[in-house]
Amino acid sequence: MSIGVCYFPEQWPRERWKTDIEAMAEAGLEYVRMAEFSWAVLEPERGEFDFEWLDRAVELIGEHGMKAVLCTPTATPPKWLVDERPEILQAEPDGTPRGFGSRRHYCFNSEAYREETRRIVEKLADHYADNPYVAGWQTDNEFGCHDTVRCYCDDCSVAFSQWLADRYETVEQLNAAWGNTFWSQRYNDFETVDPPRHTAAEHHPSRLLEYYRFANDSVVEYNRLHADLLRGCNDDWFITHNFMGRFDSLDAYSISEDLDLVSWDSYPTGFVQDRLEDGHEPTPDQLRAGDPDQVGMDHDIYRSVLDRPFWVMEQQPGDVNWPPHCPQPGDGAMRLWAHHAVAHGADAVLYFRWRRAVEGQEQYHAGLRKQDGSPDRGYEDATQAASEFENVLEDGLAHVDAPVAVLHDYDNLWALSEQPHAPDFDYWNLLDAFYSAFRERGVQVDVVHPSSDLSGYDVVAAPALHLVTDPLAARLTDFVETGGELLFGPRTGVKDAYNKLQPRLQPGPLTDLVGAYVDQHESLPPHLESRVTHLETKTNYEYRTWGEWLEPTTATPVLEYDGSNGGVAEGRPAAVVNDERDGTVTYCGVWPEANLADALVQPILERAGVDYSTRLSEGVRVGARDGYTWVTNFSSDRYRIQPASETTPVIGGLEIDGFDVTVLAGDLVDGLSVASLK
Amino acid sequence: MSIGVCYFPEQWPRERWKTDIEAMAEAGLEYVRMAEFSWAVLEPERGEFDFEWLDRAVELIGEHGMKAVLCTPTATPPKWLVDERPEILQAEPDGTPRGFGSRRHYCFNSEAYREETRRIVEKLADHYADNPYVAGWQTDNEFGCHDTVRCYCDDCSVAFSQWLADRYETVEQLNAAWGNTFWSQRYNDFETVDPPRHTAAEHHPSRLLEYYRFANDSVVEYNRLHADLLRGCNDDWFITHNFMGRFDSLDAYSISEDLDLVSWDSYPTGFVQDRLEDGHEPTPDQLRAGDPDQVGMDHDIYRSVLDRPFWVMEQQPGDVNWPPHCPQPGDGAMRLWAHHAVAHGADAVLYFRWRRAVEGQEQYHAGLRKQDGSPDRGYEDATQAASEFENVLEDGLAHVDAPVAVLHDYDNLWALSEQPHAPDFDYWNLLDAFYSAFRERGVQVDVVHPSSDLSGYDVVAAPALHLVTDPLAARLTDFVETGGELLFGPRTGVKDAYNKLQPRLQPGPLTDLVGAYVDQHESLPPHLESRVTHLETKTNYEYRTWGEWLEPTTATPVLEYDGSNGGVAEGRPAAVVNDERDGTVTYCGVWPEANLADALVQPILERAGVDYSTRLSEGVRVGARDGYTWVTNFSSDRYRIQPASETTPVIGGLEIDGFDVTVLAGDLVDGLSVASLK
Amino acid sequence: MSIGVCYFPEQWPRERWKTDIEAMAEAGLEYVRMAEFSWAVLEPERGEFDFEWLDRAVELIGEHGMKAVLCTPTATPPKWLVDERPEILQAEPDGTPRGFGSRRHYCFNSEAYREETRRIVEKLADHYADNPYVAGWQTDNEFGCHDTVRCYCDDCSVAFSQWLADRYETVEQLNAAWGNTFWSQRYNDFETVDPPRHTAAEHHPSRLLEYYRFANDSVVEYNRLHADLLRGCNDDWFITHNFMGRFDSLDAYSISEDLDLVSWDSYPTGFVQDRLEDGHEPTPDQLRAGDPDQVGMDHDIYRSVLDRPFWVMEQQPGDVNWPPHCPQPGDGAMRLWAHHAVAHGADAVLYFRWRRAVEGQEQYHAGLRKQDGSPDRGYEDATQAASEFENVLEDGLAHVDAPVAVLHDYDNLWALSEQPHAPDFDYWNLLDAFYSAFRERGVQVDVVHPSSDLSGYDVVAAPALHLVTDPLAARLTDFVETGGELLFGPRTGVKDAYNKLQPRLQPGPLTDLVGAYVDQHESLPPHLESRVTHLETKTNYEYRTWGEWLEPTTATPVLEYDGSNGGVAEGRPAAVVNDERDGTVTYCGVWPEANLADALVQPILERAGVDYSTRLSEGVRVGARDGYTWVTNFSSDRYRIQPASETTPVIGGLEIDGFDVTVLAGDLVDGLSVASLK
Repeated sequence: MSIGVCYFPEQWPRERWKTDIEAMAEAGLEYVRMAEFSWAVLEPERGEFDFEWLDRAVELIGEHGMKAVLCTPTATPPKWLVDERPEILQAEPDGTPRGFGSRRHYCFNSEAYREETRRIVEKLADHYADNPYVAGWQTDNEFGCHDTVRCYCDDCSVAFSQWLADRYETVEQLNAAWGNTFWSQRYNDFETVDPPRHTAAEHHPSRLLEYYRFANDSVVEYNRLHADLLRGCNDDWFITHNFMGRFDSLDAYSISEDLDLVSWDSYPTGFVQDRLEDGHEPTPDQLRAGDPDQVGMDHDIYRSVLDRPFWVMEQQPGDVNWPPHCPQPGDGAMRLWAHHAVAHGADAVLYFRWRRAVEGQEQYHAGLRKQDGSPDRGYEDATQAASEFENVLEDGLAHVDAPVAVLHDYDNLWALSEQPHAPDFDYWNLLDAFYSAFRERGVQVDVVHPSSDLSGYDVVAAPALHLVTDPLAARLTDFVETGGELLFGPRTGVKDAYNKLQPRLQPGPLTDLVGAYVDQHESLPPHLESRVTHLETKTNYEYRTWGEWLEPTTATPVLEYDGSNGGVAEGRPAAVVNDERDGTVTYCGVWPEANLADALVQPILERAGVDYSTRLSEGVRVGARDGYTWVTNFSSDRYRIQPASETTPVIGGLEIDGFDVTVLAGDLVDGLSVASLK
Repeated sequence: MSIGVCYFPEQWPRERWKTDIEAMAEAGLEYVRMAEFSWAVLEPERGEFDFEWLDRAVELIGEHGMKAVLCTPTATPPKWLVDERPEILQAEPDGTPRGFGSRRHYCFNSEAYREETRRIVEKLADHYADNPYVAGWQTDNEFGCHDTVRCYCDDCSVAFSQWLADRYETVEQLNAAWGNTFWSQRYNDFETVDPPRHTAAEHHPSRLLEYYRFANDSVVEYNRLHADLLRGCNDDWFITHNFMGRFDSLDAYSISEDLDLVSWDSYPTGFVQDRLEDGHEPTPDQLRAGDPDQVGMDHDIYRSVLDRPFWVMEQQPGDVNWPPHCPQPGDGAMRLWAHHAVAHGADAVLYFRWRRAVEGQEQYHAGLRKQDGSPDRGYEDATQAASEFENVLEDGLAHVDAPVAVLHDYDNLWALSEQPHAPDFDYWNLLDAFYSAFRERGVQVDVVHPSSDLSGYDVVAAPALHLVTDPLAARLTDFVETGGELLFGPRTGVKDAYNKLQPRLQPGPLTDLVGAYVDQHESLPPHLESRVTHLETKTNYEYRTWGEWLEPTTATPVLEYDGSNGGVAEGRPAAVVNDERDGTVTYCGVWPEANLADALVQPILERAGVDYSTRLSEGVRVGARDGYTWVTNFSSDRYRIQPASETTPVIGGLEIDGFDVTVLAGDLVDGLSVASLK
Repeated sequence: MSIGVCYFPEQWPRERWKTDIEAMAEAGLEYVRMAEFSWAVLEPERGEFDFEWLDRAVELIGEHGMKAVLCTPTATPPKWLVDERPEILQAEPDGTPRGFGSRRHYCFNSEAYREETRRIVEKLADHYADNPYVAGWQTDNEFGCHDTVRCYCDDCSVAFSQWLADRYETVEQLNAAWGNTFWSQRYNDFETVDPPRHTAAEHHPSRLLEYYRFANDSVVEYNRLHADLLRGCNDDWFITHNFMGRFDSLDAYSISEDLDLVSWDSYPTGFVQDRLEDGHEPTPDQLRAGDPDQVGMDHDIYRSVLDRPFWVMEQQPGDVNWPPHCPQPGDGAMRLWAHHAVAHGADAVLYFRWRRAVEGQEQYHAGLRKQDGSPDRGYEDATQAASEFENVLEDGLAHVDAPVAVLHDYDNLWALSEQPHAPDFDYWNLLDAFYSAFRERGVQVDVVHPSSDLSGYDVVAAPALHLVTDPLAARLTDFVETGGELLFGPRTGVKDAYNKLQPRLQPGPLTDLVGAYVDQHESLPPHLESRVTHLETKTNYEYRTWGEWLEPTTATPVLEYDGSNGGVAEGRPAAVVNDERDGTVTYCGVWPEANLADALVQPILERAGVDYSTRLSEGVRVGARDGYTWVTNFSSDRYRIQPASETTPVIGGLEIDGFDVTVLAGDLVDGLSVASLK
């Protein structure tokens, strides 16, 4: 349980470094990340290297009892390199190059850039191979930031053809797999399959999906190039990459196969503004601390990717410069976020950055210190968290043990994002509709790839399993038959692995398992009332965006449409439950609003024997890890925590202030309630 | 009165064809359209033709008593052709090519593509010249879809110069006609007049209008190329083209001069979402069945273009994939649309498509059958309509006989769309404001080009006659003087044929006929209250967007502005009536809201002696054809039909359900009323 | 005090000129501007000049007792020139050329175009050197219109490198000044610094600011080329340029250094629509007459630039064609605007244009005459204003003498526009929040560059002084210490001259003067309640968008945050006052709403001994010039004017109608009130 920080010695006078690094050590920090944008300083002209400054910084860090995390500086190739080899630049779908002057201006498939990368990474790795203060390496920085996974340059065109040739036996097989008879889109050889550049109308969905897979694989290969070189020099180093929030175009699972440690960059009040649905405004509390489930789902993804503790490599330290608006976080929010991360399985939280930058694109971004060196708003929060992690909680908390898995992957995200069939159909929001229902009950959730081993889970939820293959269907059937509780969301089983419609009706290969098929579906705008009735409780619930009309074969209806929406679906089943040997499948054909999601999830938890709390308020979240229970308050209201059995908090109290945290000894989720004191 | 379907045998296993085609015949279908996107299957490599599959499909269709409608497959040139001759691609105004990967990726002015077109069309026409089962041909598919009428490539540049040289004697004449002294826009020769590519500010309106005419003429020429080749092979074939809804850039009148039959593609619940004004949401009923006047106006345009019965070549069969949202149509809506089409003059309605596509861009589009072959939502509707057309209505209903003409053309649409002077000034919506007033009174309306023979009409409405020449003014004057009722909308007579302002005040050459001129005009945002007073009834009415301050010379004011809008126009005439020999002209200087439009139109119908109903509810429309009267209900409410004289329906009853249709024997529009039973 | 008009003889038949020009003279006009877009007529082919038509027009103007103002016709290079030398075209950041077909399609840095410019300007200047009827010249037309100050072509790339080489001793100095260590953005030589073309993410703010300065300097150089050539021919001519409203990218101060007379183009009802904040609609009165403070601030800028009377070179004459909507101005508004201009220091007002254009892009734009020659809506207004200026007011009114200066400049505008940190943070609106507070009190305001001599002012307001250097801080300190009242807005002193953060906390070099520093800042969305409490009056006021948490050292808090906004800033100072020797500094750390701005400004005026009125209604403004006091009414309501001492108006009455003007003899601002008669 460590606190750390990101530092850019090259941006500050050399005489200041010692002061800064001493202060870091005093604050209880343990890790310092450096050098991710420093190529132009490390190699000011081709072949003229200057590592001395970085040697000195690492040395100071080590002398003060901390460890350095170094980065390969490839996210920002210097101007001299771009001018020498302009072919390294990415291109837009219309051919416009993505030029020098910001960052991430290189193509992952450029042989020229891979050569340059090899050169600088080898040089650096070699140089630090025996340095005792370097704990590990971050590859590059935030792959995919600014929508740069997908490039449309000529190098990508050649590489895409090769990638396809490696995956299909013949081009006829490709034509059949994609369905290229449609609109005369057949290819006569792999060489003529281009990237999906500018066209008059929409692209073929199978070609898009394969291009997105290819583009992601290009990053995987590029990341592996770094990892292999670094491991070749010193295999005690850990290799990590810092994922930036969640990116639509980058598959965290495949990148992470080459990593020892997964880390990510967490900016709660930025993301909550960036990623809201059109027409929605963040609440005042969200502006002050973010959405705990948005942050929490990211923690859970990056924890689950390698099924081991993760790091927050960049933690928001105060106000930041890049969201639409830049509110000040609530008092204590910077400490709250560190605890929230640990509760979700983090082992280290590094604040970004030590001092406010005085230059370049990230001016107006808080640090732990202001630009004049004085403490910034998050400094006390970070120090307190460091002290609590060192003094109160045992070191090296065990890994989070989650009884529930939510299935998540990028193939489904990519397929649905190109065929949403509703402007407000967003993969992440649909995932969240199910994920949050578990988190509102204090249940820890792994967010895992459908190919994962599911046997350890009591409950599996698959909110958006659009693409389904026969082997996956068999594995899910096995999960249920051996006693699992399985919950499907809408649009399940529509497509095959190539983004073609299943020849059978939806849910395709899952039809027998679900005990029902989809007769019709529809998407609906937000201004229509959309309701279903729970057949047991007779309660009416709202749904949104998507509705399927189910035809049960062996399943039992649990929801049916009422007369809203012009009554076109009135009386038709909207969700069914099917018992399969020792387990149960629930299929929900609508996108549920929160109350409906809870009405579906609570009986599942009950049947599965999973411990859960009473339903929590929006801003309050509970989570257990290794014998401790965290209550994190992302709202400005006060609450009283009421565990089912008596306990004394080890951190905080049973009355909890706005933006505060309480840690209880013991796993106390079962029956816990948290009552407002407003 | 036929029902048919669109079919893509090349997308399905050969062993399935017989089953499918048998089922079509059983459903009562008479026509099957095929092959519009099949070039890559017909000619997989240059010069290697494979027509056998299509032969077999045509044969099966013929053997089951149906007829095939074949298409020239030019809308989707195959990849090998694009790679060989990339110069066939269209270009955006900034030069970016519109590449391969969707459809319509060819330039109408490409000599290379015309050569390729000749090659494939001749080959196909030749092959099927004596096939007894081929009834006719559709040229290409939906010219202009995805905004592809206008291209900005170098071929277009050369062709545009030539087109101008053919139309003007000297470049000085062009300079004078356009008014190129303005902003030093004079040309010294035709060769240097380019397409209107990217510029810092707006383009010259006369250059734009001529470019739009040129671009449209390029499609006319290209379509004629097909028609001539096909007719050269077999002149018993009918030649048609399927217009897609209504396209701003494509002039249906000029294209149709080379056709025997006009057809169009009708997607009521798609169009009603696509073509709404900003900030307006479709009502729940519109999401379920579309807007009857939007669909109806398209029927009326395509019927009037050649003044003969038309076809719906693609009829929405259920939910579709491409609008913002994809609601399920109301129960019965697919049958309702077929009847509505026939009431407006259709002779055949072909549903698109037989089976849901499992591949490519149009997955998630309903068919009459689902992808597994089972009946889809529209199947029963189509079958019932086929049965009613065959068994209840006489075959070969006579052409619709409309007493009213609404003038419509593309020159005015193009001119107004480039100089709207209000973001909410839309040509089609202005047209609809007048058109709907007639349809709310059950009156059949021809929507005709201003150059048409108007002598047969009792009433002519010209909602948006922005460009007026002397000969047109003379013809309209003649229409009125020989007893016609003529109604003008705002912005009449502002411009000459070259999109220059008339040297006289508005309405220019129509001033004497109107008996008034426009002193000033203004456009107004929606948030201002805008009202006029009817001088006879003293009723206040709302108008929107556009107001003209009229100065009567011989005319009598009928509307005047009240004190709304800051009172700047208070007391000035907003509409006038002028008697000219045996007829009357009404000039309405504002864009009328519905109540105002009715208040103007009802007295005109009365004076003209046109039969009309009581004012109908929004979703209910009435229309007579060949001795039958259709009542079509596009709403979910129930109504009671009250004809002025007793009658028994031949289809449906006098109480009519939501999304249902009633057909009465006899022309019963006069005095008919339809009362809500809600 | 002259009225004039803009005229395009080349667009009308020669036989009409005499009639037109006679009518101008009869209307009392004194100046006629001509020829700004006439290059293609003056030189129809290379080297073939035709000046005869312009000679004749100038002669007619002179013979009728008026003077001509001629223009260099460079805003619209003819097609033959563009075709010969296409390298003169500007380019977009993605490389797309800004082509022929509208206007302003040339690059200021094109050596080719400078050569052509020299050629045509010399020819013209030479030709008219001794013409007694030419009073002066306008250079080009509306530099920067359609966002054309900034070009991204190769000529600009070379010129930018040279510009930098002229300004920095070494490239290392540039790297240090900008802070190019950030994201490896260091350059190794000047030649490789490109224009900020398309990149994946945002550009370096220092590079942007320098590029904006460079681009502006390119226009300065280009304008100077004209001015030098013209002065070289006849140094009695005045040289002016017509600035179009206010352009974000063009620095009026630097351009004007080469001018004798500053003029600008004023379109009140256009600008009020164009430049409103997102989500705001203009009020009905604003649609009829514009916003008096928007127009007034522009008058004050262009008057203050050279500290001498200015001209309105183009005055809106009625409805115009280019705003979103085109309402008719209120009755009398065209006269109101002329008086308002004179009250703010104009010496001449030329209406644009004499007759409505029948051709090209500006059809639908009113003139003083309609296209048929009959009087247009503004004709009587212009005539009446001409008569009042000649007969009632003394000729040659003295310059406006303003006691208050508002600091304004383009460096701050450019810096803030690239780092707004809130979508609704707009430089001009922030300026207006302070400017309007003075104008609501009838006080005349100079809007001046921070480098101006401030010693003559009683009050200086600096609403947006984001970039502050030590010398500027010293000058402001001197202003206060010698008795000045100084008022700062939020975001003061954040940056240095290169757009880097100050190394000290905000307000950097002004901290001692302000007696406080900024601990934290935040930006907030509009849907949050944001309030402060006035510590003396205990009144609550609203603020918006930006809030700073101040830490006073020597200053006294006057505002503090209340518990709104989640209370995160509750109790912290939001504004402070600091006494410095003989003067006082007020620092306001929030963007004030109108009531708050008045609460800050009124005590400042009182302390400074500046005369002021009671607080005026939104549409009513008062201003004194040379012993007259104008009351201008931009609303449709009636008001009663109540001067503190008895007076008789010389124009209008003490009761004033909507859109009317009253002129009182004497400087009567002190204590004047204007009461609604609604």
